[in-house]
Amino acid sequence: MRAVLRVVDLIRKKRDGGELTREEIACLVEGAARGTVPDYQLAAWLMAVVCRGMTRGETASLTEAMLRSGDVMDFSDLPAAKVDKHSTGGVGDKTSLVIAPIVAAAGLYVPMISGRGLGHTGGTLDKLESIPGFRVDLSLKQFRRALAACGCALGGQTPEIAPADKKLYALRDVTGTVESPALICASIMSKKLAEGIDALVLDVKTGDGAFMKNERDAIALAELLVETGKRMGKHVVALITDMDQPLGKKIGNALEVEECLEVLNGGGPGDLRELCIELSAWMLFLGGRVPDVSDGRRLAQEMIASGQARDTFRRVVRQQGGDERVVDDPLRLPRATSVKTVRSKESGFVSRIACERVGVASVILGGGREKQDDAIDPAVGIVLEKKIGDAVKSGETLCAVHYNADARLQEALQMLESSFVIHAQAPQKEPLISKVIGA
Amino acid sequence: MRAVLRVVDLIRKKRDGGELTREEIACLVEGAARGTVPDYQLAAWLMAVVCRGMTRGETASLTEAMLRSGDVMDFSDLPAAKVDKHSTGGVGDKTSLVIAPIVAAAGLYVPMISGRGLGHTGGTLDKLESIPGFRVDLSLKQFRRALAACGCALGGQTPEIAPADKKLYALRDVTGTVESPALICASIMSKKLAEGIDALVLDVKTGDGAFMKNERDAIALAELLVETGKRMGKHVVALITDMDQPLGKKIGNALEVEECLEVLNGGGPGDLRELCIELSAWMLFLGGRVPDVSDGRRLAQEMIASGQARDTFRRVVRQQGGDERVVDDPLRLPRATSVKTVRSKESGFVSRIACERVGVASVILGGGREKQDDAIDPAVGIVLEKKIGDAVKSGETLCAVHYNADARLQEALQMLESSFVIHAQAPQKEPLISKVIGA
Repeated sequence: MRAVLRVVDLIRKKRDGGELTREEIACLVEGAARGTVPDYQLAAWLMAVVCRGMTRGETASLTEAMLRSGDVMDFSDLPAAKVDKHSTGGVGDKTSLVIAPIVAAAGLYVPMISGRGLGHTGGTLDKLESIPGFRVDLSLKQFRRALAACGCALGGQTPEIAPADKKLYALRDVTGTVESPALICASIMSKKLAEGIDALVLDVKTGDGAFMKNERDAIALAELLVETGKRMGKHVVALITDMDQPLGKKIGNALEVEECLEVLNGGGPGDLRELCIELSAWMLFLGGRVPDVSDGRRLAQEMIASGQARDTFRRVVRQQGGDERVVDDPLRLPRATSVKTVRSKESGFVSRIACERVGVASVILGGGREKQDDAIDPAVGIVLEKKIGDAVKSGETLCAVHYNADARLQEALQMLESSFVIHAQAPQKEPLISKVIGA
Repeated sequence: MRAVLRVVDLIRKKRDGGELTREEIACLVEGAARGTVPDYQLAAWLMAVVCRGMTRGETASLTEAMLRSGDVMDFSDLPAAKVDKHSTGGVGDKTSLVIAPIVAAAGLYVPMISGRGLGHTGGTLDKLESIPGFRVDLSLKQFRRALAACGCALGGQTPEIAPADKKLYALRDVTGTVESPALICASIMSKKLAEGIDALVLDVKTGDGAFMKNERDAIALAELLVETGKRMGKHVVALITDMDQPLGKKIGNALEVEECLEVLNGGGPGDLRELCIELSAWMLFLGGRVPDVSDGRRLAQEMIASGQARDTFRRVVRQQGGDERVVDDPLRLPRATSVKTVRSKESGFVSRIACERVGVASVILGGGREKQDDAIDPAVGIVLEKKIGDAVKSGETLCAVHYNADARLQEALQMLESSFVIHAQAPQKEPLISKVIGA
């Protein structure tokens, strides 16, 4: 009874706009991880947090408590800095698969724990699993072995990592308590800090295809993430990057692996290549591998040009059970049986692409999940032929839809058709990276 | 999945300050009653309601939905108006036991569903059960029979009455979501309207011993209750009454029954008698028994003076299985084995009585519950010798403690000693009834 009363008092304190202490937050988070605080009390507390907010101090305490609810990996025996990148998620956002091998090839360690796609955004684990045989469900031991052998490891959240986050994340999803900067920050940072990293580069997306639709919210979240990371003694910066159109040209799991291989082979779309170089450069800089970011850019480019990044990726694929032949022969990736094109009905310039709708169209084709236990079709997806600013003539292809089943094809096609806005005038170009926070 | 998604959307809407429709509220309330909406979603929604508030329209919809979650009694076959009184609860607040027989003796029907004590406040059901044999757990059939036979029936909430309220009330208690005027209003009114009444008099307490500590909150709640009742087509008024000291002189279950019998016999403390007459008068007026409230006062006094109210109470006790001999011989009520007095250490006037502390002292003696399943000792309690404004000499008795067990006696005595504040000057007298809302 005493414990229950205590929890009610904490809920009431937050409800009334009070600031919870480190111990009070730890009590709730431990209760969540151990299952001693019932879901309905956690839900009430989460809603009070969403409505009343959390101070920076509370956010740090929450992050710390969630981090301590599980194991923190220790890679201090490995002879270089451990660095990682985290993206808040978007459409066609596939940089992890390029960055991890670049930074590992340059001599740092990248212990990368990623997630699955949910909603209109893709997930790194789903993309990796489109490589035949590739296993992301590594035990901590396997993860460590891969990291030591390849310089990077690409796995999913294990039960040992931030179990309180796992619990609270699932609860937030069904109680309308996702949209809280403090809760988002603690969820991201607790998982990332559990990787035992020294430095973290955050890719905070903003725009129609991002969770943060406007830049102000994205900057606020970025500042919170950076401050929380710094309070925990880590080197952290956040890049505010554009998600008003998909990143690169390919959306869909195998299609995105294919595009990553293009970049690792020195090609690929300009925006994707630029962002991968930039994020890698910051990781190399924060990890102490280079004295400044511009040196980081040069080193990252060198890792691509020399083929070392691609070789590292090949090693990771092999290490994690995947068919390494895909690296040189992407046709071995799953491919959809059919392709249908969406054509422009007018001439002009692409002025807008409804980015979230493109993500939803990919989900409808089977490339993502509408419910958590939906199966994914790794082969399906969308290939953009035109991006914002491109000139287009009536009848020209805007994008191609790769599909396997006819069931919801029409729905996806209509969605894509209505996603492109064509204007007579060329639109003003928005920068890919608008700000760096914390540098 | 669809139903779950729907509920999340409703939670989010309220979280963002939106106004839920009648149908949306009904969906949540039905889900609560049927158990199809999980507790964690209800808890998140309740917290969003506490944080964002509810409009008058939403409050009415919530009341209606909670009312419709169960049976509404129909006493339209009984040949007079059905009226009731509800108090928001206090210390020594025992008016129900006096009022129900007065109004019934005057010819109206009083189908009174009451609650148990929780926290520092007493409950009508616990008081009634201190009468040997008295049964409050009447079935709907037994309740109807008692009402038809005696003009009043005194029972507890049956499973058929507002089951959604039962569910939400229990959840609010453990999720810090009690303090919402809208939720309080819907909880009170749904149960009262389920009694099938035509009119309701509300006794909204304010002061240290009440749930609403300040008068502004009490008035706001009273206005909400009155408006909600009127929207449902009922005659409703609310009296704002003082709870800065216990009502009457006796606190504790059997002691309070004893004091009620004093009033029914034409005696008893002035404040208790006054409030009982006033509340009865309003019930008689709203129920159409008298053309105005002053006639109601006269009729209520007549019911006492003539012994008709006492006779009605005797009939109710017999009807509900109790030992009716207590009515003429209160010594038959359970009595504590020991009495200890608390004496004043100074001379002057009682300027303040920490009313909530007096209630807590009674709970500590065993007269109330600290946990929902605690057993109650009906005999224990406190008898005040001095009330606010009374002159007191050093060494004179302030109050007497009736107890059976020594275990926590000292704690209760200390609590009571520190509850009385003595000043050299006589304090200003506060009115017992400060306002009537809705008249």
